[in-house]
Amino acid sequence: MNWVAGVVLLSLIEYLVFGALVGRARGKYAIAAPAVSGHPMFERYFRVHQNSLEQLIVFIPAVWLFGGYVSPLVAAILGAIFIVARIVYAVGYIGAPERRGSGSGLSFLMQIVLVVGALYGVIRSLIVAG
Amino acid sequence: MNWVAGVVLLSLIEYLVFGALVGRARGKYAIAAPAVSGHPMFERYFRVHQNSLEQLIVFIPAVWLFGGYVSPLVAAILGAIFIVARIVYAVGYIGAPERRGSGSGLSFLMQIVLVVGALYGVIRSLIVAG
Amino acid sequence: MNWVAGVVLLSLIEYLVFGALVGRARGKYAIAAPAVSGHPMFERYFRVHQNSLEQLIVFIPAVWLFGGYVSPLVAAILGAIFIVARIVYAVGYIGAPERRGSGSGLSFLMQIVLVVGALYGVIRSLIVAG
Repeated sequence: MNWVAGVVLLSLIEYLVFGALVGRARGKYAIAAPAVSGHPMFERYFRVHQNSLEQLIVFIPAVWLFGGYVSPLVAAILGAIFIVARIVYAVGYIGAPERRGSGSGLSFLMQIVLVVGALYGVIRSLIVAG
Repeated sequence: MNWVAGVVLLSLIEYLVFGALVGRARGKYAIAAPAVSGHPMFERYFRVHQNSLEQLIVFIPAVWLFGGYVSPLVAAILGAIFIVARIVYAVGYIGAPERRGSGSGLSFLMQIVLVVGALYGVIRSLIVAG
Repeated sequence: MNWVAGVVLLSLIEYLVFGALVGRARGKYAIAAPAVSGHPMFERYFRVHQNSLEQLIVFIPAVWLFGGYVSPLVAAILGAIFIVARIVYAVGYIGAPERRGSGSGLSFLMQIVLVVGALYGVIRSLIVAG
């Protein structure tokens, strides 16, 4: 599971970078806390960070269980694709929210594959054990 | 821990469905990204998804540690109740926010039971090992 | 990993307390769901809870992997510092958002140390295994 652990940690570093960009945008567009709106550009950075949070809650348990129940190598490869898709998403969204589609679709697909694949692995284990 | 893993994955699928409903509501009520407000019905779907995120961050580690330190079977049963309570919550909230109480209270109770139960199991292990 | 599990559960209890304070603030400042803004004091409580969520998604996997790959004892100590830093942050933020700096900086630093330390441990394991 070493490769899966590495991919999980890289996804966390990516997320911390998105968070740092929100902090920078807060200063640049003069949005004083606790406000989280007020300038469209700030809102784009904020939504990229929030959307990554919304996806990590699925990605981390799913990539871990996929690794444990199906294949650590395949889990790590799918996880690496997820991380790259998040960069594509972020670059697209910050450029223009209507262009967030491609990266968003790919990272969503990775989530589905990881969750459904892990569930298949769990059910197979339950049948074998039963 | 197979049953606990299965329950975790089902909670993720439920959450992905809530996320898909937000996407559909974005189109239906014409809320262009990055906005997350502008129509009360869209805000209900958005808050159901966000609230599920807020609860999964507790539920997933807690159900896993409860399974490992107390009982995998009891963890899976409490987890299944949590998942059903989230459906009750979502249906109630989308119908009328003031009716979100019952499902919300039950899923909150499951969180408390899982966290406190797991903490009891950890403390017991620390005493036995000490 | 008993101490790490205990620290994870304490961080979840802290987060549930922040969530309960949001619920209380909703009543006190008369912010009806699904609204999440409308009174600066409510927004402070809401942001403390949200910010904790944003940090737990990193903290929980990172403290766990740091414990597994580097040292469970050091992971538990860093985790305990993180939990205390969140209290400092919350008290500061609710008092005055511009005073959130110290607790915020310390908990962010703990995240970085846990993620980078765990990544170092994973890379070391990959080299040893390779």
